[in-house]
Amino acid sequence: MDIKELLNAVREGSVSIEEAEGLLKREPFEDLGYARIDLHRKIRSGAAEVVFCQGKSVEQLLGIFQMISEKEGEVLGTRASEEQYCALSEKLEDLEYDPVSRIMKIEKKDKKRRGKIAVCTAGTADIPVAEEAAGTAEFMGSCVSRIYDIGVSGIHRILASLEEIQSANCIIAVAGMEGALASVLGGLVDRPVIAVPTSVGYGASMHGISALLTMINSCANGVAVVNIDNGYGAGYIASQINLSGEEHEK
Amino acid sequence: MDIKELLNAVREGSVSIEEAEGLLKREPFEDLGYARIDLHRKIRSGAAEVVFCQGKSVEQLLGIFQMISEKEGEVLGTRASEEQYCALSEKLEDLEYDPVSRIMKIEKKDKKRRGKIAVCTAGTADIPVAEEAAGTAEFMGSCVSRIYDIGVSGIHRILASLEEIQSANCIIAVAGMEGALASVLGGLVDRPVIAVPTSVGYGASMHGISALLTMINSCANGVAVVNIDNGYGAGYIASQINLSGEEHEK
Amino acid sequence: MDIKELLNAVREGSVSIEEAEGLLKREPFEDLGYARIDLHRKIRSGAAEVVFCQGKSVEQLLGIFQMISEKEGEVLGTRASEEQYCALSEKLEDLEYDPVSRIMKIEKKDKKRRGKIAVCTAGTADIPVAEEAAGTAEFMGSCVSRIYDIGVSGIHRILASLEEIQSANCIIAVAGMEGALASVLGGLVDRPVIAVPTSVGYGASMHGISALLTMINSCANGVAVVNIDNGYGAGYIASQINLSGEEHEK
Amino acid sequence: MDIKELLNAVREGSVSIEEAEGLLKREPFEDLGYARIDLHRKIRSGAAEVVFCQGKSVEQLLGIFQMISEKEGEVLGTRASEEQYCALSEKLEDLEYDPVSRIMKIEKKDKKRRGKIAVCTAGTADIPVAEEAAGTAEFMGSCVSRIYDIGVSGIHRILASLEEIQSANCIIAVAGMEGALASVLGGLVDRPVIAVPTSVGYGASMHGISALLTMINSCANGVAVVNIDNGYGAGYIASQINLSGEEHEK
Amino acid sequence: MDIKELLNAVREGSVSIEEAEGLLKREPFEDLGYARIDLHRKIRSGAAEVVFCQGKSVEQLLGIFQMISEKEGEVLGTRASEEQYCALSEKLEDLEYDPVSRIMKIEKKDKKRRGKIAVCTAGTADIPVAEEAAGTAEFMGSCVSRIYDIGVSGIHRILASLEEIQSANCIIAVAGMEGALASVLGGLVDRPVIAVPTSVGYGASMHGISALLTMINSCANGVAVVNIDNGYGAGYIASQINLSGEEHEK
Amino acid sequence: MDIKELLNAVREGSVSIEEAEGLLKREPFEDLGYARIDLHRKIRSGAAEVVFCQGKSVEQLLGIFQMISEKEGEVLGTRASEEQYCALSEKLEDLEYDPVSRIMKIEKKDKKRRGKIAVCTAGTADIPVAEEAAGTAEFMGSCVSRIYDIGVSGIHRILASLEEIQSANCIIAVAGMEGALASVLGGLVDRPVIAVPTSVGYGASMHGISALLTMINSCANGVAVVNIDNGYGAGYIASQINLSGEEHEK
Amino acid sequence: MDIKELLNAVREGSVSIEEAEGLLKREPFEDLGYARIDLHRKIRSGAAEVVFCQGKSVEQLLGIFQMISEKEGEVLGTRASEEQYCALSEKLEDLEYDPVSRIMKIEKKDKKRRGKIAVCTAGTADIPVAEEAAGTAEFMGSCVSRIYDIGVSGIHRILASLEEIQSANCIIAVAGMEGALASVLGGLVDRPVIAVPTSVGYGASMHGISALLTMINSCANGVAVVNIDNGYGAGYIASQINLSGEEHEK
Amino acid sequence: MDIKELLNAVREGSVSIEEAEGLLKREPFEDLGYARIDLHRKIRSGAAEVVFCQGKSVEQLLGIFQMISEKEGEVLGTRASEEQYCALSEKLEDLEYDPVSRIMKIEKKDKKRRGKIAVCTAGTADIPVAEEAAGTAEFMGSCVSRIYDIGVSGIHRILASLEEIQSANCIIAVAGMEGALASVLGGLVDRPVIAVPTSVGYGASMHGISALLTMINSCANGVAVVNIDNGYGAGYIASQINLSGEEHEK
Repeated sequence: MDIKELLNAVREGSVSIEEAEGLLKREPFEDLGYARIDLHRKIRSGAAEVVFCQGKSVEQLLGIFQMISEKEGEVLGTRASEEQYCALSEKLEDLEYDPVSRIMKIEKKDKKRRGKIAVCTAGTADIPVAEEAAGTAEFMGSCVSRIYDIGVSGIHRILASLEEIQSANCIIAVAGMEGALASVLGGLVDRPVIAVPTSVGYGASMHGISALLTMINSCANGVAVVNIDNGYGAGYIASQINLSGEEHEK
Repeated sequence: MDIKELLNAVREGSVSIEEAEGLLKREPFEDLGYARIDLHRKIRSGAAEVVFCQGKSVEQLLGIFQMISEKEGEVLGTRASEEQYCALSEKLEDLEYDPVSRIMKIEKKDKKRRGKIAVCTAGTADIPVAEEAAGTAEFMGSCVSRIYDIGVSGIHRILASLEEIQSANCIIAVAGMEGALASVLGGLVDRPVIAVPTSVGYGASMHGISALLTMINSCANGVAVVNIDNGYGAGYIASQINLSGEEHEK
Repeated sequence: MDIKELLNAVREGSVSIEEAEGLLKREPFEDLGYARIDLHRKIRSGAAEVVFCQGKSVEQLLGIFQMISEKEGEVLGTRASEEQYCALSEKLEDLEYDPVSRIMKIEKKDKKRRGKIAVCTAGTADIPVAEEAAGTAEFMGSCVSRIYDIGVSGIHRILASLEEIQSANCIIAVAGMEGALASVLGGLVDRPVIAVPTSVGYGASMHGISALLTMINSCANGVAVVNIDNGYGAGYIASQINLSGEEHEK
Repeated sequence: MDIKELLNAVREGSVSIEEAEGLLKREPFEDLGYARIDLHRKIRSGAAEVVFCQGKSVEQLLGIFQMISEKEGEVLGTRASEEQYCALSEKLEDLEYDPVSRIMKIEKKDKKRRGKIAVCTAGTADIPVAEEAAGTAEFMGSCVSRIYDIGVSGIHRILASLEEIQSANCIIAVAGMEGALASVLGGLVDRPVIAVPTSVGYGASMHGISALLTMINSCANGVAVVNIDNGYGAGYIASQINLSGEEHEK
Repeated sequence: MDIKELLNAVREGSVSIEEAEGLLKREPFEDLGYARIDLHRKIRSGAAEVVFCQGKSVEQLLGIFQMISEKEGEVLGTRASEEQYCALSEKLEDLEYDPVSRIMKIEKKDKKRRGKIAVCTAGTADIPVAEEAAGTAEFMGSCVSRIYDIGVSGIHRILASLEEIQSANCIIAVAGMEGALASVLGGLVDRPVIAVPTSVGYGASMHGISALLTMINSCANGVAVVNIDNGYGAGYIASQINLSGEEHEK
Repeated sequence: MDIKELLNAVREGSVSIEEAEGLLKREPFEDLGYARIDLHRKIRSGAAEVVFCQGKSVEQLLGIFQMISEKEGEVLGTRASEEQYCALSEKLEDLEYDPVSRIMKIEKKDKKRRGKIAVCTAGTADIPVAEEAAGTAEFMGSCVSRIYDIGVSGIHRILASLEEIQSANCIIAVAGMEGALASVLGGLVDRPVIAVPTSVGYGASMHGISALLTMINSCANGVAVVNIDNGYGAGYIASQINLSGEEHEK
Repeated sequence: MDIKELLNAVREGSVSIEEAEGLLKREPFEDLGYARIDLHRKIRSGAAEVVFCQGKSVEQLLGIFQMISEKEGEVLGTRASEEQYCALSEKLEDLEYDPVSRIMKIEKKDKKRRGKIAVCTAGTADIPVAEEAAGTAEFMGSCVSRIYDIGVSGIHRILASLEEIQSANCIIAVAGMEGALASVLGGLVDRPVIAVPTSVGYGASMHGISALLTMINSCANGVAVVNIDNGYGAGYIASQINLSGEEHEK
Repeated sequence: MDIKELLNAVREGSVSIEEAEGLLKREPFEDLGYARIDLHRKIRSGAAEVVFCQGKSVEQLLGIFQMISEKEGEVLGTRASEEQYCALSEKLEDLEYDPVSRIMKIEKKDKKRRGKIAVCTAGTADIPVAEEAAGTAEFMGSCVSRIYDIGVSGIHRILASLEEIQSANCIIAVAGMEGALASVLGGLVDRPVIAVPTSVGYGASMHGISALLTMINSCANGVAVVNIDNGYGAGYIASQINLSGEEHEK
């Protein structure tokens, strides 16, 4: 029942004034038109269903995965361990796990992916973060092109993949240490670049702070940054960007 | 002349092999097909033409503004001072200046703006940065809705503007001090949020570092961050995102 | 008009359903009972009326001061300059200014102060921040006892004022450099201590960051910290604490 | 014997001048009236009896717990491990342990709790810190209302609990990552908010430093901050604030 | 009147019990033997009389200088400006000022200096801080040997002065930038080295923080550190050390 | 085939224009003269062949070591563990391992070393980093003189080795804690000093950040710095410097 | 043979000029008068003989302990583990070990201690660092008075021990968390205070950095600071200070 | 007189033993063979003659410039102001000044430059630092090739100058903001790259700290870093490297 219906019911006397007052006070967001829409949009985008598995017990995870997959038909978990997967896979058929990205999920079979996101890494040690980004974006319905190990200290490797990178709707640049990949890519494409600093490195890399600062200071146009090692966050926003163009295509 | 034409000219003998070799070596990017396209795309997007005015002399600015506006028909300058504007406006008719955003520009008259970006600030002191973002996005062809002074310590102000914010293709969240606006907005919309920390504040705000950290750590989905006070950078990437959907509309 | 009245009016037909729907949507917080109470409580406490004067033009300040003082009968401004006061005092009679605390205000004549807050400083250079705290607390209706220059490197000065300090409902400890005052006071009283680090100092004081860290790390019970130089914030929360006991007394 | 009695005894000759001089010098605080009161107040408030268990041996803990519980009838320990509890519970009947808050205690049976503190967390991972705060406050005699997992990226969850939060005498806001919860709550209530940053997070959260900075920079009125993960400290000061109003009620 | 006299007076009846009680309570530290001794020792050492001039008005300085010099026969001021000296020198004869150390003082004519402190600097830009240290130590009664511009990047300069440095009771090492002087000196002498980092430098010197860290991390034996640019503090503690040996000599 | 040959082939018709265009576009760097030279120079210098072993599986390492050693006749691995060596040594004869430097390599037997690099450490705990530098430089063809445990707090140890140090073409200074060795050496030689901060230390050494700052702030001429613990990087650039003079000698 | 003897031998012809030249060049410091004195003084003070045990193998330790104890009759080791002691004690009779301070030593039986150092801690967790300081000072020949657990949040505990503290020649203040003990003690004594920050604490204590900053910023006279947890360094310099006065006494 | 001559004179009796002993003690370094060589090498390299002009008075500068130029025939000053030049140029003919690099010098006319250093900048704002590097290197006798404004966000600009950059003996990479230039250049050349972070930028560039961290973390081989804005230091070490190869050429 939305506000208009409620007000009609009040006028007609089928709902008492006290009852109406209580409804309006108790559930402001679920019961008010704009908030309901808000909630519906969240549900539709699938974002509210993502589970951060790290630190959760098997019992907790089982409950959450069952609830979401029953309601939504699918569920995405990040930072899951091999042990969590082994314990859950006995109870949940169709559960998939990827040890590199540490993504554990149940995914609808007939999902169609659209558009293109180029996920690039500076080194091979950045790949787990990149795979979390790629897996998240694919779960959200985006096509992903993986272009790994193209660090700026070997610029010819970037140039060799340039055509592929330039054809994407959005680029994710994953890099630790000096983190310069985002700036170089930002100068070579005219689409948004989402930069992900990683904690890869040692010494003055300070667990990713150096790479974060490099990326935030980027002189290139069209670069924005997410948290250190936050592959999920990058995959999410990149997919929002990628799909925004695609939505209009049909 | 592109590569194919050059190769034809070589075969036909109208260009000597030495001449062709020199051209290919000297100008790898301008002369190679994909690179030329790259350059053309940069030019088309208008980004390469932006002038960072701060610290440049009047003579330098005059030269740059004349060159770009002749070639492109328009030019965008950021961080310009009143003094720079006064000196240039005598020589350049159609030069416009906005003392809040510190944008100085010559803009084509018939430019059409499309889509919508919601530019939000936490406080009134964040407005200059927000105006730089808004002015940049408008120059790039985006419609902008300004929603200022909706800081999280008065959450009802955000809720009062929610419908307007939710109707945008991309949101820019400009905030200093604790910088929590980006997280709150990120939880209320399903479109990308570009967060801009500002140097507004005192004490432990550390000239914007605190707000930057808050925004980078955002738990909300779909939030990415640019440099402190970098309104231009936020306006640029937000416009890329906003227009990507619009391009498909025609 | 509260929700109940609105619903009655809807039932009676004196307000149309469309009009009621619009009111409920547009002003969720002002029009919903609990929110209105919220706003009313804010207004009653006087907090919403405080003006951060720094950086505002004389015109802006005049408008804000006139609006609030007309509505509330009084207004409190912080971080005001001598120049701002001189310009405003011509237009606003009853405007008062204190150059130490930089508080500029119009205050009701018959305000009664209750309870007691002890505002303590480590050194004389911390006094402006302390006076901002004291002035804020007094404006909010608290009695203030000022005990200045009792830094921990002369512990006998603290002990000499101990009886006065222990008789307060809440203590504000203002200190720069090593900022140890809060810990020492926290160990001598059984009431909450609000610690205010100041930017007083040089070298490794890092503009107050050192004092902030000292205070946050306090081993004493009952110590909480506000931002560097934030006398206003300390005065506000201390007054909330001080008055909470007093409210029950009548 | 207080000072007056001592002086009388000196005049009467029942105490020699040398003896009196020694007493006055040796025990300045215990023997001087104001200091004795000080000590008595500490003992009365129960604060001096809290034991930080981490790093203490079973023998040390047994001795301390026995001594305090015999003298006070109860004892509160924080940061206790399961192992410490198992070893002690054989010797100390009535010893209770909560593995979430890591509080180990012997508590008087007939203790009455008064007032209300709302303990709020941004996420589920913040709950152990929140439980330490809640358990401490309850031991000190305050009623606690737990409102968990209401992070600012889902603002409707805060609003749904608003009435409960607004009815408390003091609010504790526990949050890691971006730590924005304190600011949002501070803007919705007119009672003091004690903010507790947690070390929950990764990357640029820097083990709680980011959340600490966010909270210290809060623009909301009535917010003060304790150390990272310091649930005990927050529970203590919140209980001081909560009970100050209640004390006058009887 | 000390405690014993007071007690005698009480017994004799020349002081009433109430009066005695008040004296003992009101002035615990001045009236109790050990505290009085404490105060006397402070006065004797001259430290309590030092005035931090920076930020004080001419009126304030005049009052303080007159009071101390009348009571003590001399007074030491640090961080004084040329302007402050000019204004005060008209009123205070015998006032001396040194523009390098920024020390302004009235000093007893017949003061004898004893022992030796070697004050060393890495560069010429460190000299003002060194002179503040030297001037303070001399005022306190120590002989000072100045050995300037012996930075570690020219190690032969240190060695050329080694005999002079080794003959001192205490060494002060003043250095900015990399601050390595303290470690090198610490390895060459068997007396305490007080290290003073200075804010001399640029870039990654971070206003003295780098030099502070270097000195705190010193591997050499017998090195302790004071605040950045704190020449006064170094001169004070060095003089305490220097004179402790000399006191026994007579 | 270089560009000239390709263009000749185009003119002669033995390569079609389409084929030539594809080659030029697809492989800009490998196929364009200057880039090919670039790649050849990299290969010749041996740098491209270095393997960072840490975190790689035995399978990955085996594949990489076999590929490089077959192609180049030798291979250098850094940060290798004893376990990795044991597993690989069964498959790869001629594999050598040094547990101090953690270098694992296959090296050509007849390699001649030239010039001289002096590798110096402040303490014995810095030796593993120094050995990584020394081993890298030797693999690249440089002679190395090891001069260990000559920290600045015992300056006579440096002086005792001065002649040896001064005879090198390049000096590597490895130091943790205060990191002053680089400055002292920089003042005693007229050749470049490559400074390597190490994570040796505790407390305010902050895992090498202090030493890094000291070295970056060095006042000595001819000092440049690499990352914390980056012995490999220092050995590499020092060898470039050392060999640049030697190349001209033949 | 000192320089004079060598020169005499040269004149007499019993040493050839070439031999003399070699001796003077090769051993500048051991053979030159002032340097030899320097070395002798180091040996006499016992400092050069201290062994940092952590990270050394049993074989290494055995060799070093045997060499030093044979030459000096005693040896001091710091940061030794129980395991190291057990292994060494079989081979070295008279070896002593203290598990709190982690000092392992062989000490001359008839050593006389002089003067007094007061070693104070804020809490019980600071005791291991304090014991390292105390043990070092005792080994160097100083008497030590231990005054533990007198943190500033219970100021009466400091005052109760004041007479003992004031009677020392030098005070060592050991404290973690907010580290305010040094300032309070500095204001109560007129002797040098050596402050030792400890890594005790959590959250914003940042492993001792906060306590270090507090101590460096101390407003009290006569306070200087050593590295975090550096009990050895504090004991060493305090003993230098303590004994300097005592040396003159005989 | 060197040691051998002195010893001969001692044997012959023309120098007394006491006189010889004094000479050897007083001037260890100037009088001992290896040290004299050391000093001579410093003088020969010209480095000891560089004057840091900033903060020096005209009188001081005049004295230093006259002394050095008389002795050496030339003198190099860095960080000189226009005012300093104007005042000095009246007294010193042949004095030259460059307002961009802020180098003020008297240079020998017939100096020959050898080799090649490529000085590269990311932006135009980095040019003053680059010019200080270039001017220093040229004064030391190196040829310099200036390649400015080739920031990594426009990678084609680097590639267009690649041949020129690759032909240098040493490369200087000057960059602020994200500072990625050094890594990209390091990957394209096989010669040492000296990286100079600049304070150019705003916000999270933190006055060059971000660029410094980027450069220190560089994954490219052959990169070492000097202090922020330290063009002089980069020019000096680059010239050492450049000339080391050239010295062998004659």
